[in-house]
Amino acid sequence: MKIETNIAKFNEPLYLESGRLLESFQIIYETYGELNEDKSNVIVICHALSGSHHAAGRYADEAKPGWWDKFIGDGKAIDTRKYFVICSNNIGSSFGSTNPMSIDPSTKKEYRLKFPVLAISDIVKAQMKLYKRLGISNAVAVIGGSMGGMQALCYAIEQPTFAKDVIALATTAYTRPWAIAFNKIGMEAIRHDPLFKNGNYKKDDPQALGLPGLAVGRMAGLICYLSPNFFNNRFGRDYSSTDGLYELFGRFEVEKYLEYNSYAFPNIFDPLSYLYVCKTMNIFDAGRNKDKLADSFDKVQANLHLIAFSDDMLFFPQEMEEIRDIMIKLGREDKVTYKLVQSQSGHDSFLVEVEKFEDHVREILKDK
Amino acid sequence: MKIETNIAKFNEPLYLESGRLLESFQIIYETYGELNEDKSNVIVICHALSGSHHAAGRYADEAKPGWWDKFIGDGKAIDTRKYFVICSNNIGSSFGSTNPMSIDPSTKKEYRLKFPVLAISDIVKAQMKLYKRLGISNAVAVIGGSMGGMQALCYAIEQPTFAKDVIALATTAYTRPWAIAFNKIGMEAIRHDPLFKNGNYKKDDPQALGLPGLAVGRMAGLICYLSPNFFNNRFGRDYSSTDGLYELFGRFEVEKYLEYNSYAFPNIFDPLSYLYVCKTMNIFDAGRNKDKLADSFDKVQANLHLIAFSDDMLFFPQEMEEIRDIMIKLGREDKVTYKLVQSQSGHDSFLVEVEKFEDHVREILKDK
Repeated sequence: MKIETNIAKFNEPLYLESGRLLESFQIIYETYGELNEDKSNVIVICHALSGSHHAAGRYADEAKPGWWDKFIGDGKAIDTRKYFVICSNNIGSSFGSTNPMSIDPSTKKEYRLKFPVLAISDIVKAQMKLYKRLGISNAVAVIGGSMGGMQALCYAIEQPTFAKDVIALATTAYTRPWAIAFNKIGMEAIRHDPLFKNGNYKKDDPQALGLPGLAVGRMAGLICYLSPNFFNNRFGRDYSSTDGLYELFGRFEVEKYLEYNSYAFPNIFDPLSYLYVCKTMNIFDAGRNKDKLADSFDKVQANLHLIAFSDDMLFFPQEMEEIRDIMIKLGREDKVTYKLVQSQSGHDSFLVEVEKFEDHVREILKDK
Repeated sequence: MKIETNIAKFNEPLYLESGRLLESFQIIYETYGELNEDKSNVIVICHALSGSHHAAGRYADEAKPGWWDKFIGDGKAIDTRKYFVICSNNIGSSFGSTNPMSIDPSTKKEYRLKFPVLAISDIVKAQMKLYKRLGISNAVAVIGGSMGGMQALCYAIEQPTFAKDVIALATTAYTRPWAIAFNKIGMEAIRHDPLFKNGNYKKDDPQALGLPGLAVGRMAGLICYLSPNFFNNRFGRDYSSTDGLYELFGRFEVEKYLEYNSYAFPNIFDPLSYLYVCKTMNIFDAGRNKDKLADSFDKVQANLHLIAFSDDMLFFPQEMEEIRDIMIKLGREDKVTYKLVQSQSGHDSFLVEVEKFEDHVREILKDK
């Protein structure tokens, strides 16, 4: 599989849903496979909150491959022998696309808390500019889970002729207060973290990089990305063999897991970026500026494929069923499919239980 | 209704499950109604994590009455014209019973992080000493929800002849990793809060009382005590009318609710106490020191009444059903009842949807 990582710089304004703009911006993106001559073999992958453009393959120095490597590659469900796959780092995210720690051209300083709040539609709009630059006007499919699924829905609604098929996994048409509440934990923990210094923490300061507020936020995330069954099966009531049961800070195995995964997070993710990405997710509403959500979905021309996970505790299957029901009510049964996957990994099933939906995706992509 | 608040001091050691002891201890408790001559009209109420001995009635300076006032009072399901109701503040909790901020007799200083970790059985053991002092050897019923329900189960198992009926609501026989994970957020947020000063925060320091780590922990609690449906119905995607949608710290109504309720919490609850109470809850396992959970429940002599709530996201109804199934498997069908209440307030339904189970409790207490 041929992998390339590129940065596209845009010296043109990106007008944002908020009424603000980015004077210029850049997108870092990865591609897998080769673009065919008529540029008709493109599949777009959209990443989730803490994801990046590195969806597949493994760099020389990496312990783990890209986040959807099970799904994307030669001979895999998203077959890179056939398709040219593009995954961009969302603007706002801290893996190389324009984000709050980028330099504001008007002040020559980092934006920090002056960065504009981005909407899902802004992320999609920026990506459309990338495709235009690459001479790509259409995609075989747009595929994404969670916040990537919000982008997929946004493509279906706002770029109705772009993709033939849109596959949205483990997502929602509008973020509900339950999910907003989970994000709130991280947003408050960061905001009140003295190391955050109201957004003026030193970049690359090792102490700031260990920002415990962000770690606590990640911990809340880890809980709602998984599920009670996952925790029961994986950890039960197993207790650390080196800790005492009656020591106040003695730990159950689930606590060690949470510590390990959340305290590592500030080393790879920027706290300001985390605040902005949470906000982007919170304000997503496919029905905004419409009287009804149905008016948005009436614009869909792609085949819309919804994949939900039985034990998703962040975006519940009912939220995906609501979209299906809207499409049916609109008389668009022919344009929508819905698959409920029986899973035990909660919301993260779209990342870790690929084997349960890859055949379904192969079927969707067959002959395309 | 006659209300009394008293403090009972015990100048005798309390030997703890951990192998440690409290050299002396005190319990603050409230009573409602009047003890009859043969002391046969006692009902014991056990409180939850952030609850107190103030279960019913309203003090002159109070905006709200006690936490189970809908349930306890003259003519209410727990009828104080008939019963003498006792609710103790759990040891470990910071409302007046011995807790980490109490003076350690051996050092004459506050225990703080030297306080021993308490088990649910220690709380029950301490309460039994109170009843003994009051000359009470039996109760009509022991009733509690959540962590109070753990105490109720513990009474049923470890004090099998004490109460005729034990009513446990919204609880579990052993705390599962999902609940431990939610507690972990608060425990980590407190531990890393610089104001916590590794447990050496100044008592009554207004800044320390606003301890944001504890507030963040409370926020995590508020989420798992409620439910997605509760949040949807109560808040939907309503947005603060004074905040901008595209302001980073602009707030959805659910966020304002969480801020309001969590930032008020450190004013009423002590952070060290919070750590210890979470730990007590985490280590609860009715099957500990038994080969099987069934061996514990085989000791039950009271009628055990289990009340679960359909949308409890902390202790799921299946956890209560497991107890019922164990009792049935033991051939003790005659000793167990199970009621699943259809609710929309999540775990907190045991506090706020009293009207949905009060008749059931009246029926249990009838003719007793």
